[in-house]
Amino acid sequence: MGRPRSSTPTVRMIAEHAGVSPATVSRVINGARSVSPEVASLVRAAIDALGGTGPTPRTRDPRPIADRVVFVRCPYVLTDYFGFIVSGIAEELRGSGWRVELDAGNTAQSGHPLFALTQRPEVAGAITVLPTESPAELAHVAARMPLVVVDPRERLPAGIATIGVNHAAASRELAEHLVALGHRRIGVIVGPREWSVSTARRAGVRAALADVGILHEDALVRSIDPTFERGVAAAQELLSAPDPPTALMCFNDKVATGALRAASDLGLRVPKDLSLTGFDDLDVGHVTQPRLTTVRQPLDEMGRLAVLLLSTLIDGRMPRTPTVELSTQVLLRESTGSAPRRRTTPTRGGPEEATARE
Amino acid sequence: MGRPRSSTPTVRMIAEHAGVSPATVSRVINGARSVSPEVASLVRAAIDALGGTGPTPRTRDPRPIADRVVFVRCPYVLTDYFGFIVSGIAEELRGSGWRVELDAGNTAQSGHPLFALTQRPEVAGAITVLPTESPAELAHVAARMPLVVVDPRERLPAGIATIGVNHAAASRELAEHLVALGHRRIGVIVGPREWSVSTARRAGVRAALADVGILHEDALVRSIDPTFERGVAAAQELLSAPDPPTALMCFNDKVATGALRAASDLGLRVPKDLSLTGFDDLDVGHVTQPRLTTVRQPLDEMGRLAVLLLSTLIDGRMPRTPTVELSTQVLLRESTGSAPRRRTTPTRGGPEEATARE
Repeated sequence: MGRPRSSTPTVRMIAEHAGVSPATVSRVINGARSVSPEVASLVRAAIDALGGTGPTPRTRDPRPIADRVVFVRCPYVLTDYFGFIVSGIAEELRGSGWRVELDAGNTAQSGHPLFALTQRPEVAGAITVLPTESPAELAHVAARMPLVVVDPRERLPAGIATIGVNHAAASRELAEHLVALGHRRIGVIVGPREWSVSTARRAGVRAALADVGILHEDALVRSIDPTFERGVAAAQELLSAPDPPTALMCFNDKVATGALRAASDLGLRVPKDLSLTGFDDLDVGHVTQPRLTTVRQPLDEMGRLAVLLLSTLIDGRMPRTPTVELSTQVLLRESTGSAPRRRTTPTRGGPEEATARE
Repeated sequence: MGRPRSSTPTVRMIAEHAGVSPATVSRVINGARSVSPEVASLVRAAIDALGGTGPTPRTRDPRPIADRVVFVRCPYVLTDYFGFIVSGIAEELRGSGWRVELDAGNTAQSGHPLFALTQRPEVAGAITVLPTESPAELAHVAARMPLVVVDPRERLPAGIATIGVNHAAASRELAEHLVALGHRRIGVIVGPREWSVSTARRAGVRAALADVGILHEDALVRSIDPTFERGVAAAQELLSAPDPPTALMCFNDKVATGALRAASDLGLRVPKDLSLTGFDDLDVGHVTQPRLTTVRQPLDEMGRLAVLLLSTLIDGRMPRTPTVELSTQVLLRESTGSAPRRRTTPTRGGPEEATARE
């Protein structure tokens, strides 16, 4: 199944020579408009220096048509988070001459199409988003065909190519922002317990609080199916406790809008009485009052890089970094502010330290 | 390409006999869980009464695998509106045993894949959402292969199967709600002028106002690319005019959140000083303060019915109703209220009539 590219420099070789990412090289080769002229000429210079014409644009892929299908599975409704990822995947695949076979929508959760794919020679590979399959099932498929997992739900065995974001780092950065504002009792609403992302988010908060000498209490954590409604309920519970948190870190923007509703119902003003954070940077977070402090995930980029990883696998090579974790960007908006004095409880770090970090 | 079904009753025959929609029949046959047991037994009784076993579930389609691809084109990022439609299409197609070949994302707008499809025998048909192709181009494709257009941008020649919602009726109902609240100067922010939906929306407003003896002024209409940012700008313009509208009907919920921002920037309270309406019923409209009065479109259902229309075409028959317009539902929330007295201008209908309808 390999393409006749062995005599030309690989994308990675060019990327290393030019000092850019392989994704950028891929874009230049495929004529994407999102690359600046400066970067494009850097890449072309690297191709010249390494000899040859560089990898053939994938639109001119010589493989027979029947051998150019990539299966994309995203067993959720394609909106917000999932829609952006799948659009990135679809654009990158179609732009590179691949056919995209889609399996999407919530009803797809009851299917197990990946196994049957290994019997279909025309399918070159598969990308699956937040998989419902177990790690063992994914390993079974990955051993038989090129497979890339986007946003793995659980920790996967080594050797499976995955792409996601560094949730622990993002969560830690967000928690550090709250700690700097004087917050010491930070409520955390995560996703289902079995998702590794939930553990990673909690770990980030724990690390930020440990830095100021505080052990994060389990009583301040709620684990929910991340929807608006569950967000309302979880926030109500946390905020009605005898010693309520002064800040709530929510699993995503939808949960955060639910928490905002709960706060409003309880007569709490955000951010004066309560600070709130979201995650994902969806439209909903822009139209709330106040606008949500959140974390932007590079969703489109995740989809595009998944295609790049898959291309490498289809070429018969294992990517040098099969586990890619992209970094995120904390967006400080209006839903976070200084911890209210009346709700701050004495801590080992003491209020002096809190204000010192502001 | 026809399937061996001619001796069994068609979906439509069963639907008529059972007094349900063809879509419901399709669901029962394909074992969908969304049908109530009562309706399912009604449909099964109709199948018995008409003789035979009814249409074969499409999952057991006898056509060879290579002949079971449906091409789905939606040249936009799959979020909100488009994401829901494509998810409905994908679920219905996959659930019926079809393979879904996806062409999506904004970059797909520069491609013209439909023409080439007519040369691919393994592609049984195509569904295209809010097409970028001209009516003539779509007619060319539809003459050569089964094609269903979801949400046609322009009026299409007869003979092309289309599915959309009745925008004029929805817009009229929304405008009548505003008229009943005493509004006479109603600003309208529509999409691009060349979209038939823009004309239909305007027509609905015009009809509702004509009922109370008012000719809707062109000066109260803005035609924009329907985004949040353009919504802010268009609303600012309309609201800063010498005789500003007391209500704004926005093309969609995103535009309405933009208008809400503009109103807030101008110091106008919604709905006390200004009534605002959206369209689509997206998440953003639930989290604004106040929540948006809007129109729910049956997006998922549009996708599923597109598949049903396409199945009929693939079977070699023209659907009896090739132009399907689904009805919508006006959702009255918090962003609409009585017209403010200071902004109401004298009209032929007079204020008496306005209050009489409240």
